[in-house]
Formats: sequence, structure tokens, C-alpha cells
Amino acid sequence: MAEVKLLGHMYSPFSKRVEWALEIKGVEYEYIEEDIQNKSSLLLESNPVHKKIPVLIHNGKPVCESTVIVEYIDETFEGPSILPKDPYDRALARFWVKFLEDKGLAMWKFFFLKGEEQEKTKEEVYETLKILDNHLKDNNKFFVGDKFGFADIAANVVAFWLGAIEEASGVVVASRENFPNFCVWRDEYINCNQNKKYLPPRDKLIAYCQTYIQAAAVASK
Amino acid sequence: MAEVKLLGHMYSPFSKRVEWALEIKGVEYEYIEEDIQNKSSLLLESNPVHKKIPVLIHNGKPVCESTVIVEYIDETFEGPSILPKDPYDRALARFWVKFLEDKGLAMWKFFFLKGEEQEKTKEEVYETLKILDNHLKDNNKFFVGDKFGFADIAANVVAFWLGAIEEASGVVVASRENFPNFCVWRDEYINCNQNKKYLPPRDKLIAYCQTYIQAAAVASK
Repeated sequence: MAEVKLLGHMYSPFSKRVEWALEIKGVEYEYIEEDIQNKSSLLLESNPVHKKIPVLIHNGKPVCESTVIVEYIDETFEGPSILPKDPYDRALARFWVKFLEDKGLAMWKFFFLKGEEQEKTKEEVYETLKILDNHLKDNNKFFVGDKFGFADIAANVVAFWLGAIEEASGVVVASRENFPNFCVWRDEYINCNQNKKYLPPRDKLIAYCQTYIQAAAVASK
Repeated sequence: MAEVKLLGHMYSPFSKRVEWALEIKGVEYEYIEEDIQNKSSLLLESNPVHKKIPVLIHNGKPVCESTVIVEYIDETFEGPSILPKDPYDRALARFWVKFLEDKGLAMWKFFFLKGEEQEKTKEEVYETLKILDNHLKDNNKFFVGDKFGFADIAANVVAFWLGAIEEASGVVVASRENFPNFCVWRDEYINCNQNKKYLPPRDKLIAYCQTYIQAAAVASK
């Protein structure tokens, strides 16, 4: 049997994307929780460019970057397809994954800014949510077509982590009033039993985000 | 015959990536040059999220984002493969494409900053070049394996556009002294007859970059 290891972190959306893909395919794997403050030599050697989780190690060979890993898993292991079969739908899925990757980080950073700096990036965060709200208005269940897949897995960052950091920081950006379609989609995503398995406990994630925000505040002083 | 249109811009590395992929596959297409200052309604309708070139329109259906388009072309049309066949090598190619996408824009922005702001981002630019220099030391011809492909096409931004903006701005970051492997690779990339066809004339690109820098300077006043 192929040897599969995942170096991850329990509160990382990127790590959870990979776990999700492995579970869809029914791949048996060894999960290794990384201490982000004290990274293992295995992590540093496996991802010398970014030195970040997640890393999938398959038969001793590392694959890095969560979205790259999900595609690798889809192409390597038997089981239900994660990416759509049709090339045009695959392109749409990749388009939204790239959007979520490019905008997700900017959105996350917003919560660690203060005053004027936060205000400056607010417009960008709102623009991102407006685009998502508009996209999800026609199809408020899945990102592409009528099947859960690649873009939906990548969307965990806005479906679940965004709400947790909003609650931890006390700053709400994705209001029901401004982004109704997004919020309907988010409710459904979070409450779907299939998805719940691949999301961390909300209360613990919020507590983790609070610690993270406090640590960042101390570091910036 | 399938109807293929490309909305592009003659000095855009992203647009050139798509032209390159279409040429590799031998796809006949109609090229439509966009006026970036006065975008066509076809562009705005085809890429409502980003409103940017390049956009490939295949049988009336738009595909956006250069790297997504290149994968779409590879999966849709007959001809030589652009992505490697082996899933692990495909993952490596996608890893480097993502790296070039994520870091390329930060690198480009560097040249439009001044004084302290430019100094602050210098470290990031150097770190990116160090990573590329280190990667290219073992294999100073191609990004993945022994064949030109996806990551090499995406690397046009650092292989050609970076040098042009360096010359236009008078600020050199990729010196031979600091990044020797990168520079050897770059020389070979630029001077390769196969690649030359898919790069714009250097003098015209430099002149275009100078206009762009001047316009940005006026706008920031």
C-alpha cells in the first residue's frame, strides 16, 4: 500500500482541504500535527520554499500548497472525482479556486489591521464579498454546476474561517443585509452534515483565532 | 471548426502565455488586441469578475486567468502536452506556476514604489529571486524535469518582463553577482529561438514600461 502522510494543523483551512480530499478518495494516511511555533525538520525539509503546512508526502515525495495537493490527490487516487470531468467546468473550478486563494489572504489580513489601515482594505474585502455574493445568487449551493467539488473545498476559508475570525475579532464584514446570497450559501455549507466532518469545532476555532489576534497585537507593539 | 478568440494585449506576459499555449497546440484563433484604457464591452462581459485580459473565448464560452486558460487549452485541444503527464511532475509544475503567480505581482509592484516603501519590499523581491536561483541551480534549463512546459511558460514574467522593467526603471534587482543561476537560466530562455517567437520586441517593451512608470508617477502625485 502506498505510504501517505499529511503534515497539517488542526485549525488551518488549508490543511483541512487536504484532509477533505483524502477522505473523499478514501485514502488511508498518517496525520502528523505540526507545531507552528516549532516546525519539525520533516516539514522544513519537505517544503523548503514556503516552510508551511500542509504538505502531503506520498511514497517519500512531498507535494506542497493545498490546492496543488488536492489536484494531485484527484489525479493519483481512485474514487469519486473532486474536479469536474468536463474541461470547461474544470476551468471554472480552477478560476474560483484561484480567486479564493488570491483574495482569501487579503481578507484574513484585514482582521489584523487597525484604524486607518483597516479602513483602507475594507473596500477590497467588500468587493470580494460582492463578487462571491453575486456568483452565488444563481446557484447558491455549489461554486460550479450541481456537484460539490474543488472550488467548494477551497471555499472553506470564506464559508467557515471568515465567520470565526469575525466573531473572535468582533468585526463583522459579511453581513446578511449586504451579502444575502453569500450568507444563505454559508449557512447551508456549515450546516451540511457532509461538510461538518471536515470543519473544526467552531468554539475552539474562535478561541484559537482570539489567541492569534492577541499574539499579533503583542508582536506589533 | 471550433471558434477560438483571444482578447489580449501585446505587452502583457499573461496574454503571451495564452498565445504560446495556442501555438504549441496549433490552434487557429482570432486575436483581438484590447485597449487597456478603454476596454471593450466583449472583455467586460466575458470577465466580469476581474475585467482583465487575457480572456479566451471558445465556442462563445469565456475562460479567464492566464494559468487557468493554459490548462484549459492543454486539456481541450490535441497536440503536444503542455503539462507533464506524470501526476507528481504536474504537481511540481503547478507549484511553481502558483509561486510565480503569487510572487510575480509583488515583484512588479516593487518598481512602482519609492524610497522607504520600495526598500521595505526589497527583501521580499530578493527572497523570491533567491528561491528561483536555488531552484534553477540543479536544472538551469527547465522548471520541471527535462522538458519545456507549463511552469516555463508562466515564468515569462521573470525571464523577460522583469529585465525590461529593470531597464525601464533603472533599478536592477536580479544581478548576476547575487543570482548567478537565475541569470544563466534567463539568458538561455531569452536567447532560445523557440521562446523568442512568444516574447515581444525588447526595445518596444522597455518603451512601454517607461510610459507605464511615468503614468503611475503622474497618477500618484
